[in-house]
Amino acid sequence: MKHFTSLADVEGPRQLVRLALEIHQNPSLISQQGQDKTLALIFLSPSLRTRMSSQLAAQKMGMHVLMMNQSQDSWKLEFEKGVVMDGDRAEHIQEAAAVIGQYCDIIGIRAFAGLKDREKDYQEEIIKAFQRYSGVPIISLESATRHPLQSLADWITIEQFKKKERPKVVLSWAPHPRALPQAVANSFLEWMKIAPVDLLLTHPEGYELSPAFSQDVPVEYDQAKALKGADFVYVKNWSSYERYGQILSTDPSWMIDPKKMALTQEAYLMHCLPVRRNVVIQDHVLDSPASLVVPQARNRVLSAQTVLFSLLKTLA
Amino acid sequence: MKHFTSLADVEGPRQLVRLALEIHQNPSLISQQGQDKTLALIFLSPSLRTRMSSQLAAQKMGMHVLMMNQSQDSWKLEFEKGVVMDGDRAEHIQEAAAVIGQYCDIIGIRAFAGLKDREKDYQEEIIKAFQRYSGVPIISLESATRHPLQSLADWITIEQFKKKERPKVVLSWAPHPRALPQAVANSFLEWMKIAPVDLLLTHPEGYELSPAFSQDVPVEYDQAKALKGADFVYVKNWSSYERYGQILSTDPSWMIDPKKMALTQEAYLMHCLPVRRNVVIQDHVLDSPASLVVPQARNRVLSAQTVLFSLLKTLA
Amino acid sequence: MKHFTSLADVEGPRQLVRLALEIHQNPSLISQQGQDKTLALIFLSPSLRTRMSSQLAAQKMGMHVLMMNQSQDSWKLEFEKGVVMDGDRAEHIQEAAAVIGQYCDIIGIRAFAGLKDREKDYQEEIIKAFQRYSGVPIISLESATRHPLQSLADWITIEQFKKKERPKVVLSWAPHPRALPQAVANSFLEWMKIAPVDLLLTHPEGYELSPAFSQDVPVEYDQAKALKGADFVYVKNWSSYERYGQILSTDPSWMIDPKKMALTQEAYLMHCLPVRRNVVIQDHVLDSPASLVVPQARNRVLSAQTVLFSLLKTLA
Repeated sequence: MKHFTSLADVEGPRQLVRLALEIHQNPSLISQQGQDKTLALIFLSPSLRTRMSSQLAAQKMGMHVLMMNQSQDSWKLEFEKGVVMDGDRAEHIQEAAAVIGQYCDIIGIRAFAGLKDREKDYQEEIIKAFQRYSGVPIISLESATRHPLQSLADWITIEQFKKKERPKVVLSWAPHPRALPQAVANSFLEWMKIAPVDLLLTHPEGYELSPAFSQDVPVEYDQAKALKGADFVYVKNWSSYERYGQILSTDPSWMIDPKKMALTQEAYLMHCLPVRRNVVIQDHVLDSPASLVVPQARNRVLSAQTVLFSLLKTLA
Repeated sequence: MKHFTSLADVEGPRQLVRLALEIHQNPSLISQQGQDKTLALIFLSPSLRTRMSSQLAAQKMGMHVLMMNQSQDSWKLEFEKGVVMDGDRAEHIQEAAAVIGQYCDIIGIRAFAGLKDREKDYQEEIIKAFQRYSGVPIISLESATRHPLQSLADWITIEQFKKKERPKVVLSWAPHPRALPQAVANSFLEWMKIAPVDLLLTHPEGYELSPAFSQDVPVEYDQAKALKGADFVYVKNWSSYERYGQILSTDPSWMIDPKKMALTQEAYLMHCLPVRRNVVIQDHVLDSPASLVVPQARNRVLSAQTVLFSLLKTLA
Repeated sequence: MKHFTSLADVEGPRQLVRLALEIHQNPSLISQQGQDKTLALIFLSPSLRTRMSSQLAAQKMGMHVLMMNQSQDSWKLEFEKGVVMDGDRAEHIQEAAAVIGQYCDIIGIRAFAGLKDREKDYQEEIIKAFQRYSGVPIISLESATRHPLQSLADWITIEQFKKKERPKVVLSWAPHPRALPQAVANSFLEWMKIAPVDLLLTHPEGYELSPAFSQDVPVEYDQAKALKGADFVYVKNWSSYERYGQILSTDPSWMIDPKKMALTQEAYLMHCLPVRRNVVIQDHVLDSPASLVVPQARNRVLSAQTVLFSLLKTLA
């Protein structure tokens, strides 16, 4: 594994999940495996879980960690090639990435979708620029179109809680007051398609995800039907891919409440957090034993450690 | 000790001070006592001494430290129960605290009083929410109504500098251009009431502190009279508790200057910092050998280490 | 060496460069030399290279690091003596520096020139205040008038890449859309004047640097003439010293492009970064093998380690 920015970077995703479960059983496998190595974490967007879990994962492996909030600690970066830099962007990604690459062994980078220019977002210029110019392995801490550390943590969580060999996993859209990226949903589909689960997608019409991700995933527009017999309900809002970045519906009937959960096979509830209570998911569900949102978040440390361990092995 | 948010959390405050003095004599007592443990420091308000001293205290004990400026690094948190989260607050404290609790062994949290709604401030909802939802010990790094790490450092400082068994300690209000919380003054009274000192409070009328803290503390409205024979003068501004959060006076005659100090028993000057020079205390006093403001600030490390050590013992 | 704020602080600059080259050959010389010591890094201005390289240098030596973005993490500092602090500045540098000095063994401080009041900038009040009040060694991470860690890294880079005993080094002004400080140029002259190089300065009329720095350095106002036979071209914009802080020219003919480089003796290109592409230096030059901007930035770690090592020896 040379980078960790999408499923395509991972040679054996199932082995990666197995490795995570082994590390969970035996944390000493990885302690001090990062000795004398440095992880740079660059945040172009705010973060709580990703920030804390990545930093902790690295520190527990003995790594040095350099944190950088690009907007506050430094200046604006230019990503265009060949531009005359006479505006407000003081440094080109080409130098910034190359220099950061000199200071560390692995770079984690977080940059949300702008949600204005679909082609630009889906080209993943920021992640690609770091890959091109830094000379070191890149970990996506959520990019414009994907959130693979989250998906790996999600898969680990499903393995830990599943009650049958091949559970039914439903990814359900839910309403949200703000336009959100498709990254978590995209990545979840990408990883779940190759997981030992029966995957079903449900959302209002108009909320179709990019075919590159939703291809081969059955869609059921009737949420109630979709939830029937579900073992895991993964809830997430995203803005429209077709009418890019737009909010087409805030229909509260898509919110997950106890009645919806009652349609399932005593399903577990999953969400990547942060979650808007009583908009996306009702209090009663989040506060019930069915909710896995906290174990999911805890598994972000395991997910990061598994990826760091794999990348460090390649470096060694 | 399960938390450290107020005096009530401490079984034996005098033993805690004694432990601090022992650690001061023999720092090796605590070195590496935090090995493999993690402290998360969450700042909802700015900080210099608390930030640096807490981080240093933990690092010197071998702990990992996760720092978080909530307003810059993350998003706004919702603290109300049962609310429909369709506004600008992206995450509920219930999830945030639970998740942070997964990532660390102890949480330090700093959150000033809003100074608008007295009942709300004095309910200490932020500290209590972290206690309720995180599942780990909570250290107050200053809350709406208290600053116990400061008070512990203050007590340590008095022990180190006192020239008699039972010194006279005067807490004096002083003017300030901004409305400040009552936290430092409240905590100082809370801790000094059980310390081996003769405690006296002096402030203009209208600046009475909450009875919960000032109860049993004699008040002298004439500052000059109060200062007579003082061995320690602790200076601090606070806004009114009665007319909550209001500035009732900026009377410069309450500023501490050499004439005031001359009324004392060659008293030491104390202040928690930051201090407005020539508004709260005059240059000549701050620059004199009587000033303990720097040793006080240095003792913040000792205070934090003593508390971390005590909490870690409970965890073990 | 008691501080590292300008060349004048360094007893033997050539020995310091030699030490740096030795550390580069044998990094184990310094590993763990900072054990149990603490470096505080205070940023009053944004930073990428300086922030990351200083932090990394210290961590690799086993030091604890306390980072502080003064504007975000804390409050505004007052630097004037004797002032009545009833404005927006909550703490005086006298207390802030003294307290930070209690928490660490060495302080690194970054504070740009204001570019409004020349005398004030050139008095270096911030650096001097930290020296006066903190009681610990001060490292300049770029001050109003100097950037010595950069100059040391520059000198190291020249030693590593020079093809002749005494190379010709040209410092060339280049255009920039914003008014920039003179610090990097000042420091470069200060250090290069005593380095084994033939130093030449070129800039448009009106861009003369402070005589304190440019004294004894030949100036050639014709950039093309200056570049002839150069072995190293160091490019940097600065605003006017005479008409202090003003932009007198943005003449694009001063930009460094391949034609300019063709005038040299196959010179290497140097720049401290961040660089405005196609304003200061053209893409083709930055992307050519002649560019040393990335090795220069990498040497910032070596430069910081050499300085930390030297200061720690003095402390021991």
